[in-house]
Amino acid sequence: MYAIDSPSSKSIYADASTKQPAVGKRGGMAPEVFDPQVFREHAELAITRLEKYLADSSIRGLALTAPSVLLQTAKKLMVGEYESIACLDKERLTAIIDLYIATGIQVHSPGYMGRQFSGAIPLAGVIDLVSSIVNQPSSFYEAGQLPNVVERIMADEFNRFIGWVPEQFAMVTTSGGSLANLTAILAARNDKFPHMWSEGAAALTGQLRPAIAVSQDAHYSICRAAGILGIGEEQIIRLPVNRNKQICIKQVRPTLEAAAERGLKIFCLVASVGTTSVGAFDPIDELGEITREKNIWFHIDGAHGASLLVSDKLRHKLRGIEKADSFILDAHKMLFVPAMCTLLFYKDKAKSYGAFRQEASYVFEKESDIYTEFDSAEKNFECTKRPLIMNLWVVWALYGKALFADKIEQLCQFTESAYQILQNEPDFETLHHPEANILCFRYLPENLCAWAFPDFQVEIRKQIRQAGKFFISKVDIDGIGALRVVFMNHQIEVGHFRLLLDEIRATGQALLKGSKSDD
Amino acid sequence: MYAIDSPSSKSIYADASTKQPAVGKRGGMAPEVFDPQVFREHAELAITRLEKYLADSSIRGLALTAPSVLLQTAKKLMVGEYESIACLDKERLTAIIDLYIATGIQVHSPGYMGRQFSGAIPLAGVIDLVSSIVNQPSSFYEAGQLPNVVERIMADEFNRFIGWVPEQFAMVTTSGGSLANLTAILAARNDKFPHMWSEGAAALTGQLRPAIAVSQDAHYSICRAAGILGIGEEQIIRLPVNRNKQICIKQVRPTLEAAAERGLKIFCLVASVGTTSVGAFDPIDELGEITREKNIWFHIDGAHGASLLVSDKLRHKLRGIEKADSFILDAHKMLFVPAMCTLLFYKDKAKSYGAFRQEASYVFEKESDIYTEFDSAEKNFECTKRPLIMNLWVVWALYGKALFADKIEQLCQFTESAYQILQNEPDFETLHHPEANILCFRYLPENLCAWAFPDFQVEIRKQIRQAGKFFISKVDIDGIGALRVVFMNHQIEVGHFRLLLDEIRATGQALLKGSKSDD
Repeated sequence: MYAIDSPSSKSIYADASTKQPAVGKRGGMAPEVFDPQVFREHAELAITRLEKYLADSSIRGLALTAPSVLLQTAKKLMVGEYESIACLDKERLTAIIDLYIATGIQVHSPGYMGRQFSGAIPLAGVIDLVSSIVNQPSSFYEAGQLPNVVERIMADEFNRFIGWVPEQFAMVTTSGGSLANLTAILAARNDKFPHMWSEGAAALTGQLRPAIAVSQDAHYSICRAAGILGIGEEQIIRLPVNRNKQICIKQVRPTLEAAAERGLKIFCLVASVGTTSVGAFDPIDELGEITREKNIWFHIDGAHGASLLVSDKLRHKLRGIEKADSFILDAHKMLFVPAMCTLLFYKDKAKSYGAFRQEASYVFEKESDIYTEFDSAEKNFECTKRPLIMNLWVVWALYGKALFADKIEQLCQFTESAYQILQNEPDFETLHHPEANILCFRYLPENLCAWAFPDFQVEIRKQIRQAGKFFISKVDIDGIGALRVVFMNHQIEVGHFRLLLDEIRATGQALLKGSKSDD
Repeated sequence: MYAIDSPSSKSIYADASTKQPAVGKRGGMAPEVFDPQVFREHAELAITRLEKYLADSSIRGLALTAPSVLLQTAKKLMVGEYESIACLDKERLTAIIDLYIATGIQVHSPGYMGRQFSGAIPLAGVIDLVSSIVNQPSSFYEAGQLPNVVERIMADEFNRFIGWVPEQFAMVTTSGGSLANLTAILAARNDKFPHMWSEGAAALTGQLRPAIAVSQDAHYSICRAAGILGIGEEQIIRLPVNRNKQICIKQVRPTLEAAAERGLKIFCLVASVGTTSVGAFDPIDELGEITREKNIWFHIDGAHGASLLVSDKLRHKLRGIEKADSFILDAHKMLFVPAMCTLLFYKDKAKSYGAFRQEASYVFEKESDIYTEFDSAEKNFECTKRPLIMNLWVVWALYGKALFADKIEQLCQFTESAYQILQNEPDFETLHHPEANILCFRYLPENLCAWAFPDFQVEIRKQIRQAGKFFISKVDIDGIGALRVVFMNHQIEVGHFRLLLDEIRATGQALLKGSKSDD
């Protein structure tokens, strides 16, 4: 156990006093760590390391380290139990920050083509620093005034591209897409089965069994939601998809009707724009018609693709989004801010209060006033919530939406170019026409059949990750592994992509050789 | 609508080119916002504003502004739709940061005595900056190697004070206490009603109705969890509390037995250390015995008080915590890091996987390896997750646990002093003996009966908030409003507290006068 009264552990205080902290007298406890000057020194040290990191445009992926090794490295950086603590241990802090930087996926490098989070806009990170120091949890107006009005501003900015009736819709920020999907489906459940909140499962006795219709290719958080909310994963109805992994619109009505015949009441249909696996955009305009007609809550998981709203050129891919009862958008994906910042939109403001109901005198006011009207705690899971919107708004305020739109357009255009390149490479198979910035394909030299060597692509991906030059991901498509790239960095050029293909070829060939010699 | 092709909106790029972004050539799109040098300038500007803010030790609370006014102020700070954008608009950024700072609760001031979040340790904010720039979502080892091993390290550090079998317990970080409580109760539900995940409510047909036992004074997130998880808020069994708002241990068995007689199966009992309203510590040692005997999942909401684990002097208040099946701790409360950083502990590692079950080929590996063993996505709500643990670990690594322990001890000791002061002030009524750093009381001059003027305390609190010198909170105790202070700032002195009492008196007297003259 640590001995807190040992003189050594006291030395972190300016006066190194061994007496008990004096209560009621300033100076009795003054850890240097709260000193504004020390804050500056820490911050400047971090900036210097980060600036160097941002300036490094070399091609690199991930320096994958065995957890047990990294664990020991990290432990060695910790101050010892009885060690005397130097007042400002710059060396140790530098080593920690450098280790943190070095062991991450190098999201700002052109070697990073692997996932849906990005090398964040650095200014957004700076605002996160401000948010952390001023610490304004924003579920309540009084605790975060600016974040709360800024949420309204950003809601209105987005609504220019949605077209809902002003003042009648709602937007809530929450901690990630999975949580936002869950919140929306909960609102749907409470809307369609209003007694379930108070009565629980018993409210369903004698009723049709609630069910949720989703794409065969929906994000795992949707099925999870069924498990969490007492709906049951078995009550997930899978809507068939077409070759491009979009919900096949012709099969929607028959699937819904077959489910109804089995005694299920589908209360919510979830579409995706785009899907996580291949970035497919479901036909939301038509789905909006069907759900309206059948009185089904229409939720759109737009974690990845709803950000295309900001692009005049690409917005057409979201035609019909105004028909959604709710949709989500992860700003930490295609709006390039640090994780996490998810926006959850409701067409009908009144229904945004439907997800939760509660009383808590220490926070909720009995009577609403001009301030509490801006509170969001009744509409999101979090009680304490980071002011998630701030880093998005500040960048938007300084640079306008063009910064986001141009970057999105460039990424999508580049993905199309990468697709065209693959079309001309006979040893590669493309698996879909990319709709945004996600592209899935297989390396199949010499007409290798994908089924003959099912782990081939996954093994290529693993070895490429291990080699550390590129970071790409993998995905199952129709039961077989495939390679997946996500272009989040606008500094990636055709040359980088060609280098990746070379590396895939070399890795694949080595694997094939190894496998032949194994026989 | 914005016109993205207008020359003005293009001027944010270094070359101000009006042609389409060139694909495949660097330089075609190079917003200065990604420039490392510009990052430094933005960051230095922020540091200068924050250093000034941290150095301000004046007594101040909250500058409460009407949302409509603040909304207009914020809008004016945004770049206009067709406005030409200056390359680095320092003036605008400074104005935004200053507005952000000025409109928050002044958590670093001695005037802040109001809530459970703190003026965060500045170094923790610096690490948040690093986290935002390196952007390593940490639900998967490969995406955030250091955060994932550091979670193990911090779990072990805490376990020195818990005493579970090493390697057999688990700790998961998640986005806030409400979500952590929900996760734990979901794990409990899935453990005790394993078919509910897949079958939903139907799994309960013919069974006893599931119910959760909680303190009469539990946090609202617990009751919400019953609504969310298909248990139903009606199946919340309230355990009576004693004068100090702790669960009254003598009444636990009779209450549980009465519930069983009504056909309820209590599968989970939730205790608090301490409660949000008054900071009461439930008798967890005894509750641990009862739940073990009755085979009930024992969850402890230690959002506020479980941090006392790090103090050798105060740890005794958590005697019995090792009996919990799960407990949570908000490091953004009593470990003084920025919101949010919640730690969720499970006694039995295997049960930590019980909260969620899912398949997703693009993230989850079919076969686990040394890396995936460190993944947490199967154990937390988030798919993308901030590396929440980092800012806690870095401070811990540099300063050891003594920094936290000493501050906690000082805050609790100071609260006791404040209580003693109130005992000697005949016009104040204390409502409990504080167990940590939360203190509730009423101003009742001239033996005013609390019931005679039920909104008196709430009105005092409101006016004090409005005056902007102090920020305190309010709470309902036994149906009547009360004043509530939470001491999170170690720089608060007796003199500050006495100033607050003077202000309460003056405010109360003015209200009484006004009320008399109204008659």
